[in-house]
Amino acid sequence: MSRLEVTEKIITAKVTRGLKWADVAAKVGLSKEWVTAACLGQMTLDARQAGIVADYFGLSEEDQRWLMAVPYKGSLPTQVPTDPLIYRFYELISVYGTTFKELIHEEFGDGIMSAIDFKMDLVREPHDAGDRVNIQMSGKFLAYKTY
Amino acid sequence: MSRLEVTEKIITAKVTRGLKWADVAAKVGLSKEWVTAACLGQMTLDARQAGIVADYFGLSEEDQRWLMAVPYKGSLPTQVPTDPLIYRFYELISVYGTTFKELIHEEFGDGIMSAIDFKMDLVREPHDAGDRVNIQMSGKFLAYKTY
Amino acid sequence: MSRLEVTEKIITAKVTRGLKWADVAAKVGLSKEWVTAACLGQMTLDARQAGIVADYFGLSEEDQRWLMAVPYKGSLPTQVPTDPLIYRFYELISVYGTTFKELIHEEFGDGIMSAIDFKMDLVREPHDAGDRVNIQMSGKFLAYKTY
Amino acid sequence: MSRLEVTEKIITAKVTRGLKWADVAAKVGLSKEWVTAACLGQMTLDARQAGIVADYFGLSEEDQRWLMAVPYKGSLPTQVPTDPLIYRFYELISVYGTTFKELIHEEFGDGIMSAIDFKMDLVREPHDAGDRVNIQMSGKFLAYKTY
Amino acid sequence: MSRLEVTEKIITAKVTRGLKWADVAAKVGLSKEWVTAACLGQMTLDARQAGIVADYFGLSEEDQRWLMAVPYKGSLPTQVPTDPLIYRFYELISVYGTTFKELIHEEFGDGIMSAIDFKMDLVREPHDAGDRVNIQMSGKFLAYKTY
Amino acid sequence: MSRLEVTEKIITAKVTRGLKWADVAAKVGLSKEWVTAACLGQMTLDARQAGIVADYFGLSEEDQRWLMAVPYKGSLPTQVPTDPLIYRFYELISVYGTTFKELIHEEFGDGIMSAIDFKMDLVREPHDAGDRVNIQMSGKFLAYKTY
Amino acid sequence: MSRLEVTEKIITAKVTRGLKWADVAAKVGLSKEWVTAACLGQMTLDARQAGIVADYFGLSEEDQRWLMAVPYKGSLPTQVPTDPLIYRFYELISVYGTTFKELIHEEFGDGIMSAIDFKMDLVREPHDAGDRVNIQMSGKFLAYKTY
Amino acid sequence: MSRLEVTEKIITAKVTRGLKWADVAAKVGLSKEWVTAACLGQMTLDARQAGIVADYFGLSEEDQRWLMAVPYKGSLPTQVPTDPLIYRFYELISVYGTTFKELIHEEFGDGIMSAIDFKMDLVREPHDAGDRVNIQMSGKFLAYKTY
Amino acid sequence: MSRLEVTEKIITAKVTRGLKWADVAAKVGLSKEWVTAACLGQMTLDARQAGIVADYFGLSEEDQRWLMAVPYKGSLPTQVPTDPLIYRFYELISVYGTTFKELIHEEFGDGIMSAIDFKMDLVREPHDAGDRVNIQMSGKFLAYKTY
Amino acid sequence: MSRLEVTEKIITAKVTRGLKWADVAAKVGLSKEWVTAACLGQMTLDARQAGIVADYFGLSEEDQRWLMAVPYKGSLPTQVPTDPLIYRFYELISVYGTTFKELIHEEFGDGIMSAIDFKMDLVREPHDAGDRVNIQMSGKFLAYKTY
Repeated sequence: MSRLEVTEKIITAKVTRGLKWADVAAKVGLSKEWVTAACLGQMTLDARQAGIVADYFGLSEEDQRWLMAVPYKGSLPTQVPTDPLIYRFYELISVYGTTFKELIHEEFGDGIMSAIDFKMDLVREPHDAGDRVNIQMSGKFLAYKTY
Repeated sequence: MSRLEVTEKIITAKVTRGLKWADVAAKVGLSKEWVTAACLGQMTLDARQAGIVADYFGLSEEDQRWLMAVPYKGSLPTQVPTDPLIYRFYELISVYGTTFKELIHEEFGDGIMSAIDFKMDLVREPHDAGDRVNIQMSGKFLAYKTY
Repeated sequence: MSRLEVTEKIITAKVTRGLKWADVAAKVGLSKEWVTAACLGQMTLDARQAGIVADYFGLSEEDQRWLMAVPYKGSLPTQVPTDPLIYRFYELISVYGTTFKELIHEEFGDGIMSAIDFKMDLVREPHDAGDRVNIQMSGKFLAYKTY
Repeated sequence: MSRLEVTEKIITAKVTRGLKWADVAAKVGLSKEWVTAACLGQMTLDARQAGIVADYFGLSEEDQRWLMAVPYKGSLPTQVPTDPLIYRFYELISVYGTTFKELIHEEFGDGIMSAIDFKMDLVREPHDAGDRVNIQMSGKFLAYKTY
Repeated sequence: MSRLEVTEKIITAKVTRGLKWADVAAKVGLSKEWVTAACLGQMTLDARQAGIVADYFGLSEEDQRWLMAVPYKGSLPTQVPTDPLIYRFYELISVYGTTFKELIHEEFGDGIMSAIDFKMDLVREPHDAGDRVNIQMSGKFLAYKTY
Repeated sequence: MSRLEVTEKIITAKVTRGLKWADVAAKVGLSKEWVTAACLGQMTLDARQAGIVADYFGLSEEDQRWLMAVPYKGSLPTQVPTDPLIYRFYELISVYGTTFKELIHEEFGDGIMSAIDFKMDLVREPHDAGDRVNIQMSGKFLAYKTY
Repeated sequence: MSRLEVTEKIITAKVTRGLKWADVAAKVGLSKEWVTAACLGQMTLDARQAGIVADYFGLSEEDQRWLMAVPYKGSLPTQVPTDPLIYRFYELISVYGTTFKELIHEEFGDGIMSAIDFKMDLVREPHDAGDRVNIQMSGKFLAYKTY
Repeated sequence: MSRLEVTEKIITAKVTRGLKWADVAAKVGLSKEWVTAACLGQMTLDARQAGIVADYFGLSEEDQRWLMAVPYKGSLPTQVPTDPLIYRFYELISVYGTTFKELIHEEFGDGIMSAIDFKMDLVREPHDAGDRVNIQMSGKFLAYKTY
Repeated sequence: MSRLEVTEKIITAKVTRGLKWADVAAKVGLSKEWVTAACLGQMTLDARQAGIVADYFGLSEEDQRWLMAVPYKGSLPTQVPTDPLIYRFYELISVYGTTFKELIHEEFGDGIMSAIDFKMDLVREPHDAGDRVNIQMSGKFLAYKTY
Repeated sequence: MSRLEVTEKIITAKVTRGLKWADVAAKVGLSKEWVTAACLGQMTLDARQAGIVADYFGLSEEDQRWLMAVPYKGSLPTQVPTDPLIYRFYELISVYGTTFKELIHEEFGDGIMSAIDFKMDLVREPHDAGDRVNIQMSGKFLAYKTY
């Protein structure tokens, strides 16, 4: 699984050379959310994007080809994530999952929020009682239809 | 587990009498997200809120007491949710979990986004290519500190 | 979970009165695939459809309301299905899962086949060496895009 | 597990040299579905087929022998697949599994659709609202008999 | 799940009235293996067979209809069986599973032994050092073919 | 886990040099079932047997010592086997497990069929409608006794 | 599952009427270990034994028949037991499992200690530093043999 | 995890040089049960003991240091052990777990048998009908107390 | 499982009548930690304690007998707790588990902190930046010894 | 995952050179609890702290960079820990989890004890009947609020 090895090279480069996701995203010219996910082995880059990422992290030409192949997605090693930051998102689904379901159905009828035609934006929200993480998600509603 | 039975009474009342989460939220005077989660057995209501909810759904006084007790939280029957709408949120964590982690740490350092000091807002976002589900989440950043 | 009870009433009526999925589908005027899934608690019926289904299986007015509520989907009791007929489909994914992935990506690029904007048709295919089950699935391709 | 290593060599050759499943299938003279599954370690090739595949991907003679050995089948690393494209197939079984069961039994009686005497064809279906993935599966019906 | 209730009625009748699987099988006119599996909710009976079974165990007419419906198969409550007698069969697969695979492939090529076109016979084998359980299984070989 | 490595050497030798389980069993002078299981790391060989096996597969003296050590048994990587050939045996237990239990108890009383004092014979059974796999198992009955 | 209900009746009788396992064992005339296991639904009683147990706990004649039927064994609700007393035994296997294996094989060769031809005796062992639980287990060694 | 590597070196030395657990235990001057568990990575040796073990198995000085570090305990690769010898102990807990619990509580009140202040002795018990494995366990009773 | 029903009666009484764990603990004359655990089905009460608890919550005499029986312990429905408050404790073990292990071994050598000879005290710790939960645990160190 | 490799280097240095967690904590000038967790890959060090740790354990400059990167947290290899020392903490949550929940809610209302704004102190508590492990935990209470 060579795409995994490319991901590890990217992370090693980032840690040991003090690089930034925001920087590589700016070079690619896309959001930091999409570019980071791509560097972490979850999205597929085109030739231009892969070239920039390879340059930034010092990757080989073969690595660059792997960045252009569609990866086997799923970034976590366990069904229930152990890392506290990631677990909190899992907990939100556990607590609010049925609420998401009820409110989306009340507004749109039967269907789902797409996780493919989807984008998001994660920003720091300054606050007197301590800054907040603000995440805005937007996914196309897809309706179940009869046939 | 009587809180579970109260939740089932609420859902039955909603389905058979055609009630709306948005209506009960308006009566309670809080967001539809929080009120729906509370009605679904994930939040604790105070006496005034429980009274309004009990009235709206036709619950008994004992049911009302259960609404005021802190519930055992977690609304889903399996570790990986089977319902497609809820699964998409699980998939987002699976695909974007390490991205959330990297970007929050890059911006804030080591810590988490709180799932307790947290609020969210779910709205319909009109769009030419099909309306979208827009979810805005805001959670306080909590830093790990040395001691 | 009252929708589950309505499903059980439908199955009991079918078994004890010798009813047919093809018949109720014809009455509803939709495919046998969609109507059966709906009767088994996986799809949402509108008022007209629910009325026909309720008539056919002898359901109450309250049952009919449940047919019109969006169900919590997922029809199987275990992660790996034990029933041999259903297991074969699981096995096909186990054996051909990476093949589906490679061929769809080779043809369409990164993305998925929608399981929401989806329909299928299951027919008997006469054959000298023994008749065959023929299933035609059609799901919209949804592309991952950059943002 | 050397067959696994041969599979990895094939995938690496494909990614780094820009090869196509459709091309190797044409050279072998069989469907792209069967040939891709075979290259991904799920089917057994005869000497002629293995020779063509080995040539195409630049494999050694020993690798070729592994292609001719019956593999331990099952292409996915987890019981519930994490990759979104493959998960959608799992979801279809979760949602439609009991529907498959009911309709096949209604048509054929007790038995299964074979996953061995099975073939399939995956094609792009052009559509105004976005092209679709069309998959046609055909498996022999196998009846349970008394004894 | 009414078929399950019919199974429980049959077991209760057998335990409390001291009935025998061999007797009911003789009345049905089929093997004790198939008839017992059918009574335990794993096979589908025709009208004549269901009538005999219902008579023997004192079942109602509705129960009889359930015996004629195709059951959701799988008779064990856990993935790894806890009952020692049944576990030994699981252990045989754990220890000899790869041996079954190697020997069947060496003899027949790639394919499986059918678990559908299958029959078996379980007999007592007298032996000086203690009688033995003798089980003869016969399943049709089904070959994977190219397409 | 060096026994595992010896098993892998044996499999590699078999695949790349076209060897046969039936041949090595004939040389050892025991059944193909026992010898194959032993070569696959499930049984313990004595010095003579290990010598023959080592010669046949071209193993070192150290490998030979490992063949004579009692292995940690269990030949499958997952609780529910993914390989279709092996899964069918698991399915037989799932479907017929309670039938095995009932019939053995009806014949012998409370106890089990030994999986240790056990032997089996797997043969091809010619048949007009397609040859069959015939497996004869024989295990000593072990009774639970009071104390 | 009526045997389970009989077990529950026995436990309820024991708790509410202050009965003792040692007493019922003395009446049956067998060890307290075997009789307790039988009362807890793990062993099969003969008519005389079942009569005594039924008398002692005040069971019906039908309950008595259930005591004489072979139960589906396995007394614990989870794979890893949560009760601290029972967990300690699980921990002993976790820590000493490979030690059991090595020492039994060193003494006896390849084989197992039978859990069927097995008995045990649990006694209080007085000790100055606090009394101890002393458990003596004795199981027949069963050898794997060649065939 | 270097302690694991030391364990593997010990096992390799034992298998390839024909060493005995009983011998090394005699040299250490402690029971074969404790010494074997220690060699298998479950107990902590002091400097003298580690020196003897290292000499016996031909280990390096660094290996010796690892023998003196407290190991992460738990010797089995799966929650339910697959090896038949070890599984039988798991089965004994499954079948007799509630019996252990009832009898220890009847004798001692609420508490547990310690798995830490614990020792055991495993001996061959000659028997006409086949020798038996005799295991004597002794663990301090620890009472739950009020506070 | 009648002890479970007594626990449910206690919880229902507490919720519907507005009772307090601190009150019943004061009446019993023991810590709120032990008394609450006992009321929740995790500890065994003596006759005097059970009488007070039964009075306070309005339980029957039979319920009182159940309070005096040793319960099957373990208060949580899933291996990984879903409730956020309880999950945080699980997370502490996940994050600090190896730290607990290293520091206790560095201070005491090989052994464990007893979970039986254990007590704890949970108090509110006032703090300017928000009050804190303070939990003091004290468990006897139990050493592994050689034998 | 290079942070894991740095953790392994630290443990190896500690074991083979006889180092102490208390010593490195004193050099860093923070609690032994936090510093040990950090060395074990669960906390993030700043440049000064990482420099001291690297010096003490003899790490490279690149290792030092990894100590400053936020780790993927979770220190245990299985959901239920197998090591007896760590398991006892898991057992405390299993037995006392609902007690923690009830008492914290009775004192503070709905919310949690933070596992982030958290500190602890582990000390030896001398005691006549055997020294005890004393752990003091302090976590900020975080309240669920309405919105």
